Amino acid sequence: MMTLIEDLWMKNRSLVNDGYDEALNYIGNIIDLKIHEIPSGTECWTWIVPEKWVINEAYIMCGERKIVDFKEHPLHVISYSLPVDKEVSKEELLKHLHWREDRPNAIPFEFKYYERDWGFCIQHSRLTEFTEDKYKVFINSKFEKGTLKVGDFTLKGESDETIVLVAHLCHPAQVNDDLAGIAVLVDIAKEMSKARHHYTYKFLLVPETIGSVAYLSQNEDIIPKLKYGIFVEMPGNDNIHALQLTRQGNTRLDRLARYVMKGNLSDFREGAFRQVVGNDEMVFNGPGVNVPMISISRYPYPEYHTSDDNPGIITKERLEETKGLILKIIGILDRDYVPQRTFKGPIFLSRYGLWVDWRVDPELNNNLELIMLSLEGDESIFDIAEKLDTDFEVVYDYINKFLSKGLVVKRSQC
Amino acid sequence: MMTLIEDLWMKNRSLVNDGYDEALNYIGNIIDLKIHEIPSGTECWTWIVPEKWVINEAYIMCGERKIVDFKEHPLHVISYSLPVDKEVSKEELLKHLHWREDRPNAIPFEFKYYERDWGFCIQHSRLTEFTEDKYKVFINSKFEKGTLKVGDFTLKGESDETIVLVAHLCHPAQVNDDLAGIAVLVDIAKEMSKARHHYTYKFLLVPETIGSVAYLSQNEDIIPKLKYGIFVEMPGNDNIHALQLTRQGNTRLDRLARYVMKGNLSDFREGAFRQVVGNDEMVFNGPGVNVPMISISRYPYPEYHTSDDNPGIITKERLEETKGLILKIIGILDRDYVPQRTFKGPIFLSRYGLWVDWRVDPELNNNLELIMLSLEGDESIFDIAEKLDTDFEVVYDYINKFLSKGLVVKRSQC
Amino acid sequence: MMTLIEDLWMKNRSLVNDGYDEALNYIGNIIDLKIHEIPSGTECWTWIVPEKWVINEAYIMCGERKIVDFKEHPLHVISYSLPVDKEVSKEELLKHLHWREDRPNAIPFEFKYYERDWGFCIQHSRLTEFTEDKYKVFINSKFEKGTLKVGDFTLKGESDETIVLVAHLCHPAQVNDDLAGIAVLVDIAKEMSKARHHYTYKFLLVPETIGSVAYLSQNEDIIPKLKYGIFVEMPGNDNIHALQLTRQGNTRLDRLARYVMKGNLSDFREGAFRQVVGNDEMVFNGPGVNVPMISISRYPYPEYHTSDDNPGIITKERLEETKGLILKIIGILDRDYVPQRTFKGPIFLSRYGLWVDWRVDPELNNNLELIMLSLEGDESIFDIAEKLDTDFEVVYDYINKFLSKGLVVKRSQC
Repeated sequence: MMTLIEDLWMKNRSLVNDGYDEALNYIGNIIDLKIHEIPSGTECWTWIVPEKWVINEAYIMCGERKIVDFKEHPLHVISYSLPVDKEVSKEELLKHLHWREDRPNAIPFEFKYYERDWGFCIQHSRLTEFTEDKYKVFINSKFEKGTLKVGDFTLKGESDETIVLVAHLCHPAQVNDDLAGIAVLVDIAKEMSKARHHYTYKFLLVPETIGSVAYLSQNEDIIPKLKYGIFVEMPGNDNIHALQLTRQGNTRLDRLARYVMKGNLSDFREGAFRQVVGNDEMVFNGPGVNVPMISISRYPYPEYHTSDDNPGIITKERLEETKGLILKIIGILDRDYVPQRTFKGPIFLSRYGLWVDWRVDPELNNNLELIMLSLEGDESIFDIAEKLDTDFEVVYDYINKFLSKGLVVKRSQC
Repeated sequence: MMTLIEDLWMKNRSLVNDGYDEALNYIGNIIDLKIHEIPSGTECWTWIVPEKWVINEAYIMCGERKIVDFKEHPLHVISYSLPVDKEVSKEELLKHLHWREDRPNAIPFEFKYYERDWGFCIQHSRLTEFTEDKYKVFINSKFEKGTLKVGDFTLKGESDETIVLVAHLCHPAQVNDDLAGIAVLVDIAKEMSKARHHYTYKFLLVPETIGSVAYLSQNEDIIPKLKYGIFVEMPGNDNIHALQLTRQGNTRLDRLARYVMKGNLSDFREGAFRQVVGNDEMVFNGPGVNVPMISISRYPYPEYHTSDDNPGIITKERLEETKGLILKIIGILDRDYVPQRTFKGPIFLSRYGLWVDWRVDPELNNNLELIMLSLEGDESIFDIAEKLDTDFEVVYDYINKFLSKGLVVKRSQC
Repeated sequence: MMTLIEDLWMKNRSLVNDGYDEALNYIGNIIDLKIHEIPSGTECWTWIVPEKWVINEAYIMCGERKIVDFKEHPLHVISYSLPVDKEVSKEELLKHLHWREDRPNAIPFEFKYYERDWGFCIQHSRLTEFTEDKYKVFINSKFEKGTLKVGDFTLKGESDETIVLVAHLCHPAQVNDDLAGIAVLVDIAKEMSKARHHYTYKFLLVPETIGSVAYLSQNEDIIPKLKYGIFVEMPGNDNIHALQLTRQGNTRLDRLARYVMKGNLSDFREGAFRQVVGNDEMVFNGPGVNVPMISISRYPYPEYHTSDDNPGIITKERLEETKGLILKIIGILDRDYVPQRTFKGPIFLSRYGLWVDWRVDPELNNNLELIMLSLEGDESIFDIAEKLDTDFEVVYDYINKFLSKGLVVKRSQC
């Protein structure tokens, strides 16, 4: 995971541009990506795919000095900036300059995808260097026909029902948001490739929002197959996990994610749909699509959307922890089923080697009974484990014993 | 409003009598009332319309002095008192005398509509004047065939679905209960006459309970058209508003009245059906009729059901405030509709001029998104405003913009 | 009740044995029991009816002394002990000896119905008497074909819908658990025989669990007729009542039992299914049968499952109190019905002699109105009494007045 991040983080990735395409190609060498291309100008529901943004050079001259230079850091120019080449007064320049007073040594990340403007971003601490009345501003950018690209890695399962995992890749020269989420997904994809699964798993790497809109609007037939979604980002910073629930708020996936976090983390927080942090779940779980999609992150963190979001603020351990949570959620989801009893009355447990004496283990004995009472065909193994506030694996193993003795049948995957 | 009250308050209004009829005729000169007449003796479900009560003269003589005289105040005789003309002992007289110890200088309002008795009401402070052993009691009353009268002002709307507004008019020589409620309704009727509405609005002025029973039982065909009801009384005294919920307790009207009171009053209280104060909602929202009817009042107040309930305890400002609440409730109810989206995915807001940048106004931005997520055709504009705890007018205006751009259609009035 | 207990308590009652049969025969002389016999070896769902256990003599010799003798107390031998006749080391003997350190002067009740072992039970205080290295252990027991017996007393009612009352009879030489529950049921059966009832009532006296499984599995056709069940045990000890809810947890019977306990006891506790104490409700209310069965007991008590559970720890008054509760529950259940109004509007109460003036009794007046509003045919009299938190008998009598005047009809028994 860390190599991918080191290799790609400084690229000037944007919605439709070379930096984004280079990063996607790099990932295509790790996992076998299918690339969907949607041309600039395509109508995608209420959206239009933007043109490709090309930028070669950009700087601000103060007298003879280049005081700001795009070569030094991609964030110095706002994403999708218009070209400019003129002398401007200090007053006019300041209208096109962006900084963050609360973070004086960082360059902020600014974008004007649809507002059509030019602009630069600087460290607030450097404002004192702007001592002259006149400046030359130069941005050599242009807009061309291109194609928006969506990376798609699909693991076919026994069922066509699909779990979609999404991260975005369009935030230039930043790490935690959004490259680290990509890195975690790529690693999960590699690991899951080693085994067969019940569900189909689709990993989508996109430019934020427009990428999801473009993909889904051009592939509407896939929508009915999408059962649940997981959006991942910001897995590396030093904060507790934040679980953002689906728009529905009470699906099996919501309960499962909460159960896994409760069981595996010393602390985490939980929030309603769009009340923690906003990303592509607004598309997947939005109007007319409505696939229940949770979002897992460690939002917020102070370096967010600045040049301080660099490799120094993340650790491999935190990425691994987030990856582990997602694999656990999938591990339960993929194996969970609804057992239905074939027996009547309480089971004569000792006859089937299933007895635990209450004088030996009253707690387990008590749970066994509650498990035995939960085999009516309206609860899955996860439902039972959640209800009893106990370990899924213990209940799964115990009910599998019933299954092997013919005392329950699998009613359905759930 | 205040002129009506001044002109009518001292009338000896009762269930079926001249005082009631005179008051109704007076109101008929302000708004165009249709008068429904139901003759004495008519069977109305389990009730029978009472006879007309006529009273000319009534007094108590102590020796040569008239110590109580109906001419001085109509409340001195109990409503629907039988005639009497005899000499009685002090002991017998006291059995027919009513007073209020907690309010020694007020004459209480007593009635024996169905108990068939005679009686007088006096100020408790005057009991000491009853110094003799023998008294002459004289009540020249009689009972005749008459007609119970219901005043009906109907504003036809686009729909036959009807909102009924009810107040009663049968409390003699009192102001807050019940003439002030009548005055507020008459004013609302005048104001609403100036505009067209979606619903039909029917204002009913009745003698309490029996008037509503008589009207509905003789006009059963109207019951299915009655969507909601609002009962109004005691709008003028110095107390906070009390919202009594419908029998159902959770209708759109209940929620709407609560929303308007919360948004427009610094304080109010709320109670379940029949747990604040009892009036004609027991008929309209009662067995076999069951039109959800809220009741709006400022109950309780210390002058209730006494001669102290006079013009001095009410103010025009309070009547106007109650009137304003009811007009706001109707204003929302009449315009509310269920919007249904025609778009898929999140809307490309800036393309439609609907974008608000989160860096400019995060709160509005956030609500816009939640509004965009609420256009599935199962929530009305009021539902959305209530859910977001925000102003109906703001949401109404914003969704109307969607409507004008074809992004939503009106699914239904609700 | 007390004579039955005195006569039967010391019998060595077990699942299938002479002591059990003798006790059942004794009860058959008090109430007219039908005895169901199910032979040893019969497959009953997942269970098998055990063999009859016969024990004649059993003791432990320490040198020349019999230091433990079955003749002194039946609990000295574990129920269903295998035969044994050998010299054993002290070490081996201790593996087959049972005692209770927390109750040093009591012999514990131990059973190995299905584990096939031999064993003795002693007072912990007597451990010091085991001073030698070698002991002779002798148990003259054997296992024969026999029949498991279920005592069935059925009171036919107007309806075939059946309320089943269950207690078990298989706990040797103990009183509160389980003979006292049997005594209470026998007394209720006698008392209920004196009158006719709506429901059919079936009293079942069984060996615990296997008796219920055997009876139901061999009489599956009766299961659909079983509407509710009540399990009774431990009614005599000095503790508050414990109501264990049905597996459903919210049936009419649960609410009724809670209502009766709240109204008649100064204190009681309540627990979910199988969370207070476990008995035959696991069969009746268990998988594939699922008759809602509450359990009423005074569990826990310190003498539980020891020789201290003797006549000294129970009182007749406590048995009578438990009996009274059960009769009250049945008394409401059997008479409760859903009234449906035939009138419209509020009733003209004074015309029907049903009026109570609010100036005389505001509380009753208020309840009358709420009762009048509860006659829509979707609430039973118990539902209304429970909702109003008032006395069932008062509401029952008042609504019966409506019934006699034709203002309501009986919609259904509920």
